[in-house]
Amino acid sequence: MKPDALFAHTDLHAFCRDVFEHHGVPRADAEQAAAVLLHADLRGVDSHGVARLLAYHGMLASGRIDPRPRIEIVRESASTATVDGGNGLGLVVGPAANRIALAKARTAGSGWVTVRNTNHFGAASYYVLEALAHDVIGWSMTNSTKLVAPHRGAERMLGTNPIAIAFPGHEEPPIVVDMASCTAAYGKVEIARRRGRAIPRGWAIDAAGNDTTSPDAMVEGGALLPLGSDDEGSGHKGYALAVMVDVLSAVLSGANWGPFAPPFTIQQEVPKRSVGRGIGHFFGAMSIAAFDDPLEFKRRIDDFARTLRGTRSRPGHGPVLVPGDPEREAEARRRVAGVPLVDAVVRDLASVAEATGVALPAPLG
Amino acid sequence: MKPDALFAHTDLHAFCRDVFEHHGVPRADAEQAAAVLLHADLRGVDSHGVARLLAYHGMLASGRIDPRPRIEIVRESASTATVDGGNGLGLVVGPAANRIALAKARTAGSGWVTVRNTNHFGAASYYVLEALAHDVIGWSMTNSTKLVAPHRGAERMLGTNPIAIAFPGHEEPPIVVDMASCTAAYGKVEIARRRGRAIPRGWAIDAAGNDTTSPDAMVEGGALLPLGSDDEGSGHKGYALAVMVDVLSAVLSGANWGPFAPPFTIQQEVPKRSVGRGIGHFFGAMSIAAFDDPLEFKRRIDDFARTLRGTRSRPGHGPVLVPGDPEREAEARRRVAGVPLVDAVVRDLASVAEATGVALPAPLG
Repeated sequence: MKPDALFAHTDLHAFCRDVFEHHGVPRADAEQAAAVLLHADLRGVDSHGVARLLAYHGMLASGRIDPRPRIEIVRESASTATVDGGNGLGLVVGPAANRIALAKARTAGSGWVTVRNTNHFGAASYYVLEALAHDVIGWSMTNSTKLVAPHRGAERMLGTNPIAIAFPGHEEPPIVVDMASCTAAYGKVEIARRRGRAIPRGWAIDAAGNDTTSPDAMVEGGALLPLGSDDEGSGHKGYALAVMVDVLSAVLSGANWGPFAPPFTIQQEVPKRSVGRGIGHFFGAMSIAAFDDPLEFKRRIDDFARTLRGTRSRPGHGPVLVPGDPEREAEARRRVAGVPLVDAVVRDLASVAEATGVALPAPLG
Repeated sequence: MKPDALFAHTDLHAFCRDVFEHHGVPRADAEQAAAVLLHADLRGVDSHGVARLLAYHGMLASGRIDPRPRIEIVRESASTATVDGGNGLGLVVGPAANRIALAKARTAGSGWVTVRNTNHFGAASYYVLEALAHDVIGWSMTNSTKLVAPHRGAERMLGTNPIAIAFPGHEEPPIVVDMASCTAAYGKVEIARRRGRAIPRGWAIDAAGNDTTSPDAMVEGGALLPLGSDDEGSGHKGYALAVMVDVLSAVLSGANWGPFAPPFTIQQEVPKRSVGRGIGHFFGAMSIAAFDDPLEFKRRIDDFARTLRGTRSRPGHGPVLVPGDPEREAEARRRVAGVPLVDAVVRDLASVAEATGVALPAPLG
């Protein structure tokens, strides 16, 4: 296989920003949207970064996403808000809604915001890392286009519905949880498909609802399985998490929930039924100072993280990590060495460059 | 095998209440504690109900739990509180802290309470069902005595750390999520052990950290595995959930976190290090009216639940359920037919009856 080309994250950021601006997204919002995308690329969440720019481009070019959305609070209390995202980019609506949650945490101790009429918001970890800068424990969730079968179900009904939350350390780096509620990310199935490899049993079912190790069978009408995969693995638990995320993000806000979440690209089929507006997100913000002295808390996080890393490893397994460790290591590496992009993504970006007239940056070295 | 004896839940409730009262727990608190225990028995969460009475009895009799705790708020904001449970029964401290969260939801839109210096609080679903009666979306979590290995780890470092959340329907029953963050409950390993059966691969490791299908090997120095079980199953996600629960319940509140959570029975070894007070819980309460019209929300929950139940089933699998369905069916059955108790539990209760002088109720029929 051809090795991945490496690009400077700053070059990719500028490219994304200029593409968004080309579509009428105001400069500051275009900067914001590019920052969310590059966050994913730097942290190794490759499926949620610039690899999605072509999809955003298509949605903006076809008028399916509003480049200048009116984002408004439609109901609120001291510690909560329901936000209508005006069908803007999730990469812009998400950060705005997250800021509302952070502002409420400052005044009421915590802030909880459900968002409707929005679109895909990138990697969930972006939002919780923003919160950390304010000494706030941040939460983020989103529903998304259907890909996952309910436990015991044979068809796609729920999105990969991620949950993120982060806790700051004092001397140690933060603990950052960011996990989809299905067993394996769709991106991993795509990688296996590109390489012509089988996927492990427990990741997916085929269109008939039978277990499959064929990535093609999953992509062509099959479905991903919820975390836990089957009866013995407690797939009902991953399913329950996906349900929780869908309710908090979409049912509560008045967005399209479950199988009715609109598609992410202009190529995908639009669901026959609409049960709300756009997709939905959910953000939480808990001021640490509202619960304890922040320094005391952070020192305990240090101790907790070190204790977990000190766990004796299983034979043949690597060291025990703390959630967020792999992504932080990826970020340290990629900030210096560049962001690797597979050939298919580079071709996608080239087609965006051609359509918009924004010059594609050159790869490094 | 001998069939399980059936007991009226009202008889078991009175028995538990009287045992708690025998130990100096005030009458109202004893009623409360018994109600939490019987909730678990009615809903089929057998490991968290009267099966634990002997353990509570032992802790009270030995003075390790305070029957008349001073429960106090040590820090608070409009929407948050940190509570010290005074080393009381979790079955009493938990409901008191949950009421604080509910009161804050009434005044600030939401309430979030972390609790230290408490003990095991029964089934997490009790608290979120209490919230539903107030048109509140309730959350509950707790850390617990170590039983689960971190992903790739060979030793017990975390509790089974459950997460519960519930959403009310209008015509449909509520959606109730209540899940431990490990693949299989310890109770299931115990059942396999009693029956001399193997457990599925992916549930547990032995003392050396190798996969095992022997329930004895898990019980005797092994560990449960986090939801997802292994690298291919994304065991790092179940581990991340367990970490989240431990931080919100114990690190945030100043309780003993991770491997230092104190034991549940007087027989278990006390950890060599103390890093806080007691164990910890976490409760959340979100007023539905703070986000949307409650009736509109409940109608959407009806639609969502019906849509999920309408999912085509996988070949050879039962119908697709909604989280909470199995427990609700168990409760409807057991309210009428009685609560089945295995012989070992009946013997435990008989020993409590003998030690306290409270008469053990007779089985039904």
